[in-house]
Amino acid sequence: MNTFGRFFKLSIFGESHGDCVGITLDGCPPGIELSELDFECDLTRRKGLNIKGTTPRKEEDSFEVLSGIFNGKTTGTPLTLIFKNKDVRSSDYSPDIPRPGHADFVAFKKFNGFQDYRGGGHFSGRLTAPLVAAGVIAKKIISPVNVTAIVTEVGGSTKINEVIEETLSLGDSIGGIVECVVSGLPIGIGEPFFDSLESLIAHAVFSIPAIKGIEFGKGFEASRMKGSEFNDPILDESGRTSTNNAGGINGGISNGNDIVFRVAVKPPSSIKKEQKTLSLKSGEISTLKIDGRHDACLALRVPPVLEAVTACVLADLVSMVPGNLPWFPAPAPR
Amino acid sequence: MNTFGRFFKLSIFGESHGDCVGITLDGCPPGIELSELDFECDLTRRKGLNIKGTTPRKEEDSFEVLSGIFNGKTTGTPLTLIFKNKDVRSSDYSPDIPRPGHADFVAFKKFNGFQDYRGGGHFSGRLTAPLVAAGVIAKKIISPVNVTAIVTEVGGSTKINEVIEETLSLGDSIGGIVECVVSGLPIGIGEPFFDSLESLIAHAVFSIPAIKGIEFGKGFEASRMKGSEFNDPILDESGRTSTNNAGGINGGISNGNDIVFRVAVKPPSSIKKEQKTLSLKSGEISTLKIDGRHDACLALRVPPVLEAVTACVLADLVSMVPGNLPWFPAPAPR
Amino acid sequence: MNTFGRFFKLSIFGESHGDCVGITLDGCPPGIELSELDFECDLTRRKGLNIKGTTPRKEEDSFEVLSGIFNGKTTGTPLTLIFKNKDVRSSDYSPDIPRPGHADFVAFKKFNGFQDYRGGGHFSGRLTAPLVAAGVIAKKIISPVNVTAIVTEVGGSTKINEVIEETLSLGDSIGGIVECVVSGLPIGIGEPFFDSLESLIAHAVFSIPAIKGIEFGKGFEASRMKGSEFNDPILDESGRTSTNNAGGINGGISNGNDIVFRVAVKPPSSIKKEQKTLSLKSGEISTLKIDGRHDACLALRVPPVLEAVTACVLADLVSMVPGNLPWFPAPAPR
Amino acid sequence: MNTFGRFFKLSIFGESHGDCVGITLDGCPPGIELSELDFECDLTRRKGLNIKGTTPRKEEDSFEVLSGIFNGKTTGTPLTLIFKNKDVRSSDYSPDIPRPGHADFVAFKKFNGFQDYRGGGHFSGRLTAPLVAAGVIAKKIISPVNVTAIVTEVGGSTKINEVIEETLSLGDSIGGIVECVVSGLPIGIGEPFFDSLESLIAHAVFSIPAIKGIEFGKGFEASRMKGSEFNDPILDESGRTSTNNAGGINGGISNGNDIVFRVAVKPPSSIKKEQKTLSLKSGEISTLKIDGRHDACLALRVPPVLEAVTACVLADLVSMVPGNLPWFPAPAPR
Repeated sequence: MNTFGRFFKLSIFGESHGDCVGITLDGCPPGIELSELDFECDLTRRKGLNIKGTTPRKEEDSFEVLSGIFNGKTTGTPLTLIFKNKDVRSSDYSPDIPRPGHADFVAFKKFNGFQDYRGGGHFSGRLTAPLVAAGVIAKKIISPVNVTAIVTEVGGSTKINEVIEETLSLGDSIGGIVECVVSGLPIGIGEPFFDSLESLIAHAVFSIPAIKGIEFGKGFEASRMKGSEFNDPILDESGRTSTNNAGGINGGISNGNDIVFRVAVKPPSSIKKEQKTLSLKSGEISTLKIDGRHDACLALRVPPVLEAVTACVLADLVSMVPGNLPWFPAPAPR
Repeated sequence: MNTFGRFFKLSIFGESHGDCVGITLDGCPPGIELSELDFECDLTRRKGLNIKGTTPRKEEDSFEVLSGIFNGKTTGTPLTLIFKNKDVRSSDYSPDIPRPGHADFVAFKKFNGFQDYRGGGHFSGRLTAPLVAAGVIAKKIISPVNVTAIVTEVGGSTKINEVIEETLSLGDSIGGIVECVVSGLPIGIGEPFFDSLESLIAHAVFSIPAIKGIEFGKGFEASRMKGSEFNDPILDESGRTSTNNAGGINGGISNGNDIVFRVAVKPPSSIKKEQKTLSLKSGEISTLKIDGRHDACLALRVPPVLEAVTACVLADLVSMVPGNLPWFPAPAPR
Repeated sequence: MNTFGRFFKLSIFGESHGDCVGITLDGCPPGIELSELDFECDLTRRKGLNIKGTTPRKEEDSFEVLSGIFNGKTTGTPLTLIFKNKDVRSSDYSPDIPRPGHADFVAFKKFNGFQDYRGGGHFSGRLTAPLVAAGVIAKKIISPVNVTAIVTEVGGSTKINEVIEETLSLGDSIGGIVECVVSGLPIGIGEPFFDSLESLIAHAVFSIPAIKGIEFGKGFEASRMKGSEFNDPILDESGRTSTNNAGGINGGISNGNDIVFRVAVKPPSSIKKEQKTLSLKSGEISTLKIDGRHDACLALRVPPVLEAVTACVLADLVSMVPGNLPWFPAPAPR
Repeated sequence: MNTFGRFFKLSIFGESHGDCVGITLDGCPPGIELSELDFECDLTRRKGLNIKGTTPRKEEDSFEVLSGIFNGKTTGTPLTLIFKNKDVRSSDYSPDIPRPGHADFVAFKKFNGFQDYRGGGHFSGRLTAPLVAAGVIAKKIISPVNVTAIVTEVGGSTKINEVIEETLSLGDSIGGIVECVVSGLPIGIGEPFFDSLESLIAHAVFSIPAIKGIEFGKGFEASRMKGSEFNDPILDESGRTSTNNAGGINGGISNGNDIVFRVAVKPPSSIKKEQKTLSLKSGEISTLKIDGRHDACLALRVPPVLEAVTACVLADLVSMVPGNLPWFPAPAPR
C-alpha cells in the first residue's frame, strides 16, 4: 500500500500529470517550527537545477500546506502538503506504447488499463517531491541525528561530469551509486525480527523509483571477506569500533557507529535513442524514440530523496527505544 | 517488532538456549494438507548436515505443532509450531565478552542487560528454523509459483569446497553470495509506494542474520550501465522480455518474468582465531578465542531461509491483487 | 493514529477552520465509475439541510478530487479528496475557555497548546464530510451489500420533532440513538481474535465524534436475557435464524442474517445556555455562553456517517474471505 | 487477524481441545520481574472457582513460559506462554449439530469444515486464559495506572446469587453487566481519528466472546440527556470535573478523570434445556440438549478478562504520548 511507518506515518498520493502530488504525515510531534526556507535546500537539490543530466522540466516545486500547521508550528495532527502540477506536457505520452524498463506495462496490467498513464502517473519520480518535504520534517524530529547522502559514482566512474557529457551526447542515460551516512544515532535502534534497521531502511529505499540494490557497510564485499577481517573490534563502552565493516549495524540494531549504506540507481528508461517495444494497440513490436524532457542520470537527484526516506524511518523507529514510556522508565542496567 | 505481514502474518519468538524457538502463522488458509515429510527437505538443507563448513551442533530439528492443524490439515486459525532446544552447551557463552561482529553488545545495550545472552539468545541463527518451517507452508499457498535459492559464490570464488577447506584450516570464517529466483509469478504483484516487491522482499531478507546486501536483476552493475543497454525490450502481451536486467520487477511490480535477486552474506563472527574485544566486566580490551561449535560459512545454510522469507512475502502479497474480492470482480480491461 | 484499515485504508486530515478537511483512500480497486452525483445524497443527508436542530453553518460541501481518478473512474492508486473551508467565523472561538464536554481541554493538554483550536480544529465534526465521501466509494465496492442507518430516538423519545422544538426553545442540546442495518453480507466475514466484526465496526464507529455507546443485536438487553430466550435457532443451510438477537454476528463472524447495531449519540457540547468552566488564562472558574452556529442534536446528522464508516470496515474486511487468493481456491467443503 | 496492538503486540493461538492455548507478547519492556504468584490472582478469578454458575471444567491453568523471560525477568524479546489442555472431554461435541448462538455454524462456513470443532476450537472462552496472563504483564507496564472490573448486574438484577440459583435450577443460562474503571491515567491518551480511546478499548473488548455492547460514561443514557445536563464542568488545571458523564474521555482522549465503561455479556449458548437447531448432516431441524460442563453466567468470569484487554490497550497506547521520544522532548511541560 501507499503508506509507511507506525508512529510517524507517511501516506503518499498523486499523479505526475494530475492535479497534484502530495503526502500526509501522521504522528508528527506538536510544536515543530516550519518555514518555507526549511524546505528550500532539499527541494532544490532534488530538482537538480543547473546540474547537467537532469530534466529540463522545471516545476516550481512550491507546495501548499493543507493541514497540520498553525501559527507556523506543527499542531500534532496530520500534516498534509501538496505540490500542484503546472508545467505539464501530456502530449509526450501515449498509453499504447509502454516504455521499456518503465512501469507503463505493469501499471496497465495491474490496474486493468484504468491507471493515469500520463507521465508515468503515480509511478512518476515526481512523487519524490513530497517525500523530500516529509524528510525535511523528519530530519527536524531526529535532530541532532544527521543524515547525509552523496553521489559517489556515475556509470562506474568517479569522473561524474565527463560521464554525463558523453551520455548526453549519445542521447542515452546512465546509472550511478549514492552513499548515505547517518551520524549521531544512539545504540539500540532497530528490532531483531522483522524490523531490523536494515529491513526498514531497505523497505523505504526500494520505494524510490530506479533503486535496484542496497548494501550496508562492506555489503557485497563482505561476501568475499574472512571473519577475522570483517569483524569490527569494539574499543570502548560507547560501542566505538576500530573499523566499521558492519556499517554501524549488528543483529539489525544500531551499534553506536555511523550507519553507512550505498544504493545502486539504474539508468532512466526514457532515452532519445531508438528502442524496440511492444505496441499494446497493434500487438506488434514497434520502435520508440522519446523526445520528452527527461533525466540522463537519476542518481544525481537521488541524494535528498535517500536522506528523506532514511530520516522518516528513523523518526518512526526512535519511538521504540526501551524506556521511552513516560512513566515506565528503563530499568537500571544489571 | 517481531512480526511480519498483513494477511499472512508471521510472529516469531524464542531464544537459542531457552526452552524453544517458534513461530505463529496467522492468515493461513484452511484445508492445506501438511505432514512432517513436507518439512523434511528444507529443514535438512538449513541444517547443512554433512556439508563441510557448517556447525556440528546437530539439533534434531523435529518440531511440535501447538495449534492450527486438525486431522492433518490447516484449520484457518493461527498455526504455531515450536522447535525445542535440546543439544545446548551454555558454558560456551559469557555475557561479559561480546563477540566482535555479533549482536552481543547491542543486545546488552538495547535490553539493559536483561537479554538472554546464551548462544546469542533471540539473535541466534537458530530462529531461522521456524522461519524455514513457515516457508514450507507459504510455498504450498503460492504454488505453482516456485522459489529457488542457491549458493553462487563463497569468498568471491565459485570453487566453494576449496575455499571452505582453506577457511577451516585457518580456524576462520568466510562470506558468500546466494541467488534466489521466483518463477511463475503473475504480472501485477507489488505496490508502487511503499510496498514495492523489492521493498517487501528486502524487508524480509534483512531479518535473516548476516545478510548485508541485496540486489535485484543487474543490481549494482545497473549503476554502471546505459539505459539503451539496461532497458528490457517487451516481446509480447505476456510481458516476456528479451533480457531480464530488471530482475522481473518494474516500478516495484512483477512484470511476468522471473524475479531474480542476490544477497551478500557476511562471514560468521564466531571464529577460533584470537580476536580483540572489550570486556564489559573490566572495561578493558581483552582477547577472545571461540572454541564452540560454529559455522565457517553461513551462506551455505541461507538458501532455504531465503526461499522461506520470500515465499512468506509472496503469500502475503497475493492477497492484494486487484479483483480478488469475492463479489467485486476486476473490471474488464479497456 | 489518523488512519484506518489494512486493504482499504483511510487517512484523514484537516482542521475545521484551516485550509480544508480531506481524506486519502488507499486500496480502492480500479475502474469504479464516480461522478459528483454519487456523493450528493449522502453529503446532503450529513449536512442536515432544512432539518430543524442542525447547524445553520452551511458549507457548500463541494469537494475537489486531488488524485486517484482518471477519465471518471478510479485508477487503483490513492484517491485523495478535500473539502475547502469557506464559511468560517473563527471569532466564535477562544483558546482560553475550553467548552465543557468538548475536546478543547484535552487537545490543549495533548498537543501542548499547539493545536489549531479554531472550531475544534482537527476534532471538529467537519471531518465527517470526507468520511461520508469515503463511504460513498466503499458502498460501491461492497455492493450489493447494503448499509442503512436511521435515527430511532431523540432524547429518549420517538417524537423527534417535538423534542427538537423544545430543545431549541431552551437554547439547549439533546442526544439520540441511531440504528444501522447491513443486509446481504455473506457468512464468514470477521475474524475470531482480535478483528471480530463487532471489534472493527466499533473501532470505526467510536471515531465518530459524540458516540458514547454501541450495541449489537439485543445488546444491553441481552444482559437481562436467558440463553433459552437469546439463542437464535438456525433454520437452514443459509444460516437464516428465526430470531436475530445476535444482530447477525456469532463469535465475531457474520452468520448470514442482517447485521444490526445501535449507537448512542451524546448531546452536542456547544449550547446557548450559560455554563461554568475553567479559564485556562486566569485559572479561575468562569461562565460561558456559546452563541455560534451549532447543532442542537448531532444524532440527526450521524446516519450517513455511520453508514460510511461501516461500509469502509466492510470494504476492508471482504478482502479476507477464504479462497480470495487468485490462484489458491477455497478448498471444497468436507 | 489474531493479533492486536502496534507497540505492545498480542498474538493469540490455540484451540480448546487441541494441544494448548497460548499468546505471544511482543514489545514487552525488558527487566520486568515476573513470578507465578503475579498471575495466580487473576487466573483464579477467571476460572471462577467456587463461584456458583461457572463451569465445573477445572483446568489447572498452570502455564509454561516458552520464551522472553530470563533469570525471572522479561528480556525485551517476545514472551510466549502456553496453557496445555488437559481436562478434555471431546465426546461432548459433534461437528454436525451447531449450537444455536454459538460460533459452530459460522466457523464451519468460514473455514469450509476444516475448523477444529471440539469445544468450540479457536472460538472457545478457553482462549481468555492467555489473555488474562497477558493482562497481568500489561498491568505491570502501566502501573501505577490501575484497571478494575466488577459484575454489577446479572439478568438485570443486582441480587446476583439469587438469579444464578434460579437459572441453574432451570438448566438455563443468563447474561450480565460488567463495569470497568481505569484510574490514574494521565490526560492525553488516545488519538482523534481513528484510534480514539473508545475505539481501541471497544476493539479489544469485542474480541472477548459473548460481549454484545459497550458504553462509556453515561453511554446510552446520554442519548436521553440534554447538553446542559451531560457536559462535565472542568474544575481545575488537572482536568478534574464535577461530574464524569463522559467517562473520562473527550474527543477520544483521556481527560484526567477515571475512565468508566460497561459491557453487556450475553447468556452462554450452551444450556441443558432442549433447543431446536439445524443438523448439518441431515439438513433437518433437530433438537439439542447440552449436558457438557458449561457456565450458567459468563459475566461472572469476565472481569479479569476485561481488565486484561483494557490494560493491553493502555500498554500499547502509552507509547504514543507526545514527548516520549528520548531526545525529542515535548515542547511544553505536560
